[in-house]
Amino acid sequence: MKVFILITGSEFVNGLKLEKNSLFIAREAFERGLEVNGIGIVGDDMYQIQYFIKMALDKSDILIVSGGLGGTQDDLTREAIQEAIGVHLIYDREWLESIKKTLKDQGRALTDEIKKMARLPYGSKRIENPVGKAVGFVKILDDVNKAVVAVPGVPSEMKPMVKKAFEMLGFKEKLKRSHIFRTFGIQELEIDEMLKDIDGVILNSSPKGVDIFVTDREAFFLKNKVDVIRERVGDYVYTEEDIEMEEVVGRLLKEKGLTVSTAESSTGGLIVSRLVNIPGSSSYVMAGIVSYSNEAKINILGVSKESIKKFGAVSDQVAREMAEGVRRLTGTDISVSDTGIAGPTGATEDKPLGLHYIGYCDGEKTEVHRIVYKGERNDVRLYVSQYALNLIRINIGR
Amino acid sequence: MKVFILITGSEFVNGLKLEKNSLFIAREAFERGLEVNGIGIVGDDMYQIQYFIKMALDKSDILIVSGGLGGTQDDLTREAIQEAIGVHLIYDREWLESIKKTLKDQGRALTDEIKKMARLPYGSKRIENPVGKAVGFVKILDDVNKAVVAVPGVPSEMKPMVKKAFEMLGFKEKLKRSHIFRTFGIQELEIDEMLKDIDGVILNSSPKGVDIFVTDREAFFLKNKVDVIRERVGDYVYTEEDIEMEEVVGRLLKEKGLTVSTAESSTGGLIVSRLVNIPGSSSYVMAGIVSYSNEAKINILGVSKESIKKFGAVSDQVAREMAEGVRRLTGTDISVSDTGIAGPTGATEDKPLGLHYIGYCDGEKTEVHRIVYKGERNDVRLYVSQYALNLIRINIGR
Repeated sequence: MKVFILITGSEFVNGLKLEKNSLFIAREAFERGLEVNGIGIVGDDMYQIQYFIKMALDKSDILIVSGGLGGTQDDLTREAIQEAIGVHLIYDREWLESIKKTLKDQGRALTDEIKKMARLPYGSKRIENPVGKAVGFVKILDDVNKAVVAVPGVPSEMKPMVKKAFEMLGFKEKLKRSHIFRTFGIQELEIDEMLKDIDGVILNSSPKGVDIFVTDREAFFLKNKVDVIRERVGDYVYTEEDIEMEEVVGRLLKEKGLTVSTAESSTGGLIVSRLVNIPGSSSYVMAGIVSYSNEAKINILGVSKESIKKFGAVSDQVAREMAEGVRRLTGTDISVSDTGIAGPTGATEDKPLGLHYIGYCDGEKTEVHRIVYKGERNDVRLYVSQYALNLIRINIGR
Repeated sequence: MKVFILITGSEFVNGLKLEKNSLFIAREAFERGLEVNGIGIVGDDMYQIQYFIKMALDKSDILIVSGGLGGTQDDLTREAIQEAIGVHLIYDREWLESIKKTLKDQGRALTDEIKKMARLPYGSKRIENPVGKAVGFVKILDDVNKAVVAVPGVPSEMKPMVKKAFEMLGFKEKLKRSHIFRTFGIQELEIDEMLKDIDGVILNSSPKGVDIFVTDREAFFLKNKVDVIRERVGDYVYTEEDIEMEEVVGRLLKEKGLTVSTAESSTGGLIVSRLVNIPGSSSYVMAGIVSYSNEAKINILGVSKESIKKFGAVSDQVAREMAEGVRRLTGTDISVSDTGIAGPTGATEDKPLGLHYIGYCDGEKTEVHRIVYKGERNDVRLYVSQYALNLIRINIGR
């Protein structure tokens, strides 16, 4: 079964907004074993929308349109579908009544604009909107055995309605068609070289590491591929779930009953902020000190003035004293620290742009890693925060 | 002039990767006064790519294809264009020589895969790749007066090459076709109501506020619209540039010669991390204390145990003592603080989910704002950080 996804919205073709709905819809289709054979994005233009609808119905079995179901004059999807498939629009009486009731409870009147949102092509099945007023629909074209689905563009409405539409079309069940490995500490090129004999592998690099997606239409082949990949790159994998490093680390801290604190300079609070991202983190994150100035390093963390003078603020020794200082100050089980030059300025002859010292301390030992990461300021900081979190993972996960 | 953008890559139609290149290309076209009449995204499938190329050349004057110019068997763009427009591929001798030279310098051999990347349709003009080996091209179809442009999918290669292609096609000059207002403290619905008589307005909401894009093909009309919008919503605008709140605040702090520190609980370091995002922030950001636990609030910031006992950690009084405490500890000119319940748990009968107290202190006065923001945990934290930064802006910008 082939699916075509059509997104409407002038903001997308004018380059004013990043279009993200197609990713969600494509993923949902893919996970149900359906093949998306194209995605189209068009402005709020009746001619273009109709053109794409006809083209999509010619090429595909299921057309999913997202956007243009509101009540303004820019919302053209219903009329475009009406024209393209030659079926007139009617009011969904039940839905209209429920809208009226909601409005009445809110003390608001039914306007023509709102009323428009209760229309759907004759003979289609309603997809209830759990959030807003625009009704969605599934219309089966019996003569050609194809289906048109329309859902709003607002993500919180679109997402449950797309799932519902697939269910209505008989594709409720998700298949295991892909697997993710999230790695850190290895380059994309190296992984590419290690896995080049395996097809259906997609690599996605960022300062957080390289994500490996592996896909196969058959569960049996997928499992084989997963086993091979795990054997080859397993040492670098921090999770095989679609979760972030901070969640991996958070689970470990909780499981081991350990508390953590951070002393950050270059990352400016990014490490602690990422740890706090995770619900329930108040049980293991105690505090973070962002000692951006030398005075803060000395006065709050107790880094020695002499160390800064002798080695510089960006040094192995200062990273060490920061990690030890914050652990002492907060009384946590473990702590991490960083000091470095994120750029674009601040480099010297001995200390290149991107140089960072990252410290880890658990009372028994303190270790400091020296790294150099070249890149845009915020990419550097993201990488350093990932490195520090990974350092916790490696140390306490043993 | 109509432009069609075609993106190739199976990772996009399978929902495994967010497609972002079309946004950049669409924006570049829009800013040059060109109309993008559609965007297509297809997998690495010869038939689909050809179908879209033909369709696009039928509907548009300029087709820009991104992706599929590498040397692997998934890279089909060159062959697809060859078939679709009926022009054979040749080697760009000069480009091939430069590749050979680079490889020689690196001590690598020329493989067939790399060699493929030097091919382009007969009669086309080369677009040099400033980063990688795949050559791009502009091919004018003289008989129909249309153009096909092909560039790689790697963003660092694609971006300069797209700009170059527009230049080669005679669209170097950018027009002033859009203007941005970034607002905070007003709802999207309110703005929509205030600006509903102005066309070409696009609103984009997030926890950081509502961005207003206003567009017009004519500079004169654009200026008129901008003036009207500024008069109506100007009070809520924190910038009319495409920059973040932390940059606005950073510029103000620098201009006024003020230093800042933060005492964060709910935001977990997000405020200070955002401030540190800005290059040069080390001249005004001194330190941030993430006092996530009560002990940290008491021991590091000097919040009184009695206040926490009497009012709770999430209270006006504690936010006040946090702001004053961090200012005292770090000796900065101003400070901000927050304490709240980001969720999903932690709410009580008196203290609903999303309740936050945000403090500001400058030595002369301390003010605390009480807000309730409902939403997903990280959206709440983003909103609170934006609120705190805006509080600095309002206070020191006066």
